[in-house]
Amino acid sequence: MSLKITGVRITPVAVQDPPLLTAIGVHQPYALRSVLEVETDAGLTGIGEAYGDDPTLERLHRAAPALIGLDVFDLNSLHRRVVGALGAAVPTEVLTPLVGAGSQGKAVAATVAAFEVPCLDLQGKAVGRPVVDLLGGPARTEVPFSAYLFYRWAGHPVAPGYPEDDWGEALDPDGIVAQARRMVDRYGFGSLKLKGGVLPPDQEVETVFALREAFPGRPLRIDPNANWSVPVALRVAERLSGVLEYLEDPVGGIPQMAEVARATDLPLATNMCVTSMEELPPGIEQGAVRVVLSDHHFWGGLRATQRLAAVCETFGLGMSMHSNTHLGVSLAAMTHVAAAIPSLTYACDTHRPWQREDVIAPGELTFCDGALAVPTGPGLGVSLDHEALARLHAQYERCGVRRRDDVAAMRVVHPDWTGKQPRFS
Amino acid sequence: MSLKITGVRITPVAVQDPPLLTAIGVHQPYALRSVLEVETDAGLTGIGEAYGDDPTLERLHRAAPALIGLDVFDLNSLHRRVVGALGAAVPTEVLTPLVGAGSQGKAVAATVAAFEVPCLDLQGKAVGRPVVDLLGGPARTEVPFSAYLFYRWAGHPVAPGYPEDDWGEALDPDGIVAQARRMVDRYGFGSLKLKGGVLPPDQEVETVFALREAFPGRPLRIDPNANWSVPVALRVAERLSGVLEYLEDPVGGIPQMAEVARATDLPLATNMCVTSMEELPPGIEQGAVRVVLSDHHFWGGLRATQRLAAVCETFGLGMSMHSNTHLGVSLAAMTHVAAAIPSLTYACDTHRPWQREDVIAPGELTFCDGALAVPTGPGLGVSLDHEALARLHAQYERCGVRRRDDVAAMRVVHPDWTGKQPRFS
Repeated sequence: MSLKITGVRITPVAVQDPPLLTAIGVHQPYALRSVLEVETDAGLTGIGEAYGDDPTLERLHRAAPALIGLDVFDLNSLHRRVVGALGAAVPTEVLTPLVGAGSQGKAVAATVAAFEVPCLDLQGKAVGRPVVDLLGGPARTEVPFSAYLFYRWAGHPVAPGYPEDDWGEALDPDGIVAQARRMVDRYGFGSLKLKGGVLPPDQEVETVFALREAFPGRPLRIDPNANWSVPVALRVAERLSGVLEYLEDPVGGIPQMAEVARATDLPLATNMCVTSMEELPPGIEQGAVRVVLSDHHFWGGLRATQRLAAVCETFGLGMSMHSNTHLGVSLAAMTHVAAAIPSLTYACDTHRPWQREDVIAPGELTFCDGALAVPTGPGLGVSLDHEALARLHAQYERCGVRRRDDVAAMRVVHPDWTGKQPRFS
Repeated sequence: MSLKITGVRITPVAVQDPPLLTAIGVHQPYALRSVLEVETDAGLTGIGEAYGDDPTLERLHRAAPALIGLDVFDLNSLHRRVVGALGAAVPTEVLTPLVGAGSQGKAVAATVAAFEVPCLDLQGKAVGRPVVDLLGGPARTEVPFSAYLFYRWAGHPVAPGYPEDDWGEALDPDGIVAQARRMVDRYGFGSLKLKGGVLPPDQEVETVFALREAFPGRPLRIDPNANWSVPVALRVAERLSGVLEYLEDPVGGIPQMAEVARATDLPLATNMCVTSMEELPPGIEQGAVRVVLSDHHFWGGLRATQRLAAVCETFGLGMSMHSNTHLGVSLAAMTHVAAAIPSLTYACDTHRPWQREDVIAPGELTFCDGALAVPTGPGLGVSLDHEALARLHAQYERCGVRRRDDVAAMRVVHPDWTGKQPRFS
C-alpha cells in the first residue's frame, strides 16, 4: 500500500476571538490558525491544524516541499526532513511568550507536529482505524475537558462592525461565576480553570473562593502565566492550599517554580517552564513541577506527546493538556492523543467554547457532560468544511492580523502598556 | 476492519545450546523458548516469542484467556487485561539473575511484551505494513549486531548422545580471538562483545587486549554480569580505559555502579541494575549508567522499548540492546524496534549465531556485514516453520529442562559451585 505525499496545502485562517484578558494583555479580535491538507498518491487527503502566525507559516512553507515523496508511515523520516529543510537559520519565535521561550528545537518540534497529525490522519484513513488506535488504543473512550474561564471585556475596544459575542464582561468574582455557570450549563464541564495574572492576586483569590462556593467539589485551577513574583506566589499558594487541584505557572523559570514548590503542598503545573524534552531534566531535578501540561502543537506531535508521557510516568509526574485558541481539527487530535495516554488523568484545557467559527463540519465534536467521545471514524474522524475554510481564509486576508500580540491589543486602551512580567510583585 | 483475538496457542520449545560460560555458571544443553500464535476473527495469525521456563509459561497461560475478544490495536487494553489476569499473586521469578531482580511490575511487563509482539505482527499483516512502520518508520534500514563472544567448553560435561557443535573450547585469549575471527568471517560483525565474569579479571583484560590487537578499531565491550567487586571493577576500568566502547555491569546495584562510574571515564552500560521504568529515576539520579541495554522481552514490548528510548534520549543516555538466547521471531521483533529508535546507535547483542535450530523458515533473517536488513514484508516479516516448531516442541517434551539454571549446570562439574556473586573481589 503506497501512501506517499504528493502535495501539501497550507491555508491560513482567522477566527473571531473575544477580548479575553491574559497576563500580558488581551486577545486580538482575530486569532490565527492554519489548516494543512496533505495529499497522497493513494488519493487520500490528511488534515491538520497549526498556528497561523507569520513565523509559523514561514516554517511550514519551508518544510512542505521537503515532504513530497514521504511515506506517511515514516515519521522518523518526517523529523529528519523537517530538520533538513528548516536548517540552522530557522526562525525560533514562538506564538506567544505565554508558552515559554523559543528555541531551535521547539521550532522543529512545532513544525514536525503540524505535519505529523495529517500523516496520522492519513494512516488511519488508509487502514480504516481512528488515530487513537495507531497510538496504542483508547485508555478511555471519552476525554474530559475543563471550562476555561477568562476575565474579559464585553467587546473589543476599537473594532468597528465587529460582531461581539454575548458573553458580556467578567471582571470580578460574580462575573466569572456567571461565566462558569453558563459554561457548565452548556457543556457540562466538571473542572474549572481560571486564567489569572490579570487582576491583583488577592482579587483573583477571591474569584477562586467564589467558584468554590458556587461549584462545591469541582476541581479548580488558576493559571497566572508567571505573572507573580515568588513572594506573591507564596502568599497566594498559602491562601489556596487545599482549594486548588493544581496551581499553574505561578512564577516564571524552573528555579523560581522550584522555590515555590518547596514551600507549598499545592501541586504546581506548567506549560511555560517545561515545554520541551530539553527542559524536563532540570525541571525534574529541581522539583519544579508535579504536573506537565502537554500540547502536541509544541511538543512535537501526538507520538512526541506519548514520549513526554513516558518521561512523566517514569518520574511520577501527572499530565494534563494545555490549549491555545484552536479549531476542531486540533481538538480532534488532542482528543485522540489524550485518550491514548493512560496517565493523562486531568481534564484537558480547551479554548474551543470561545470560538463561534470552525473549519470542521458542524456537529462533529460535541461536548457531553464536559467530555468528548473519542471519534471512531477513520483517522482523526473529522472532516473539513471547505466553504467555512474559504470564508475564514478570506477573513484572514481581510483582518490584517499576522501574528498574535496580546500586548499591542492592550495598548489600544493603555498606550503605556508593556506586558512586562511579572506584573504583580 | 475487525481484528479481535479468538485464540492463543503457546508452544514451549527447547533448542540445543552450547556450554557457554556465564558469571553464575554455564548454559544447559537446552535453552527454552515459547512460541505464541495469536488467532483472530479476520483469519490472520500473529506470532511472537517469549521465554519458555515454567514461571513464564504459567504467566502466559494465566493471561491468555483474558485476551479473547481483544482488538489487536488496543494495546492499552492488552496491558489492563494482563494486569487483571495475573492479579497480585503473579509469580515474579525472572528467567535468570543475569537480568536483575524480579518484581511484580517486571512480571507484568514480560507478559505484556509476549503478547504485544503478535498483536503488532497482526496489525502489520492487516494493514500490509512491516512492524517498523507501526512504530514510526525506520530510522535505519539495517540494524547492526555485535558478535557475542563466550568463554566456553567444547562440549557439555554429561550429555550422552548430545550433538555438540564444532566451535570447540575457548578458555583463553587465543581461543576467544579464534572464536571472534570465525564470527566476524561468517557474519561480518563490526562490534565485539565478550561475556566476562568467568575467568579471573586480569585474564579477561588480557583477552580484551588480544581482541584489540587482532581487530584494531572495532568497538569492544565486556560484560562480567556484576561478578566483580567495586575495587576489582575500578582496577579493570583503569586498565581498559580508552580500550572499550562501554563496560557493561561490572558490579551489581545502582549505588555500586554509580561508585564505579564516578571513578572512570568508561561509559558504564547495564541490563541488570536498570531493567524497568521504576529503576530509571534512581539510576539516572545517581549517575549509575550512560548506556541502557533495552530488551523488549522484559521492558514490556516494542512500544515500551520506545518509551524507554524517550527517557534515555531526554536524559542523554545511550541505548543498546540486550539478548538472552532467542530464536528468529524475537530476532525479527528486535530488528524492527531497533530500526525505529533513532537513538539506538550501538550494535545490538544477539545470541543467535550460537543456535543451530530455529522456528522460522530457513534463510529468512541473514546477517550481512554484521547487520540485518529490516524485514519489509507485512508484520514481523518472518513466518513459522511448523515442522521445526513441532520438532523443537518434541525436544522440549524430551529434554526435561523446565527452567534456566546456569548454577545447577555448573554443579555437574563443580559440586560445590554456588554461583554466588560477586565471585571476584
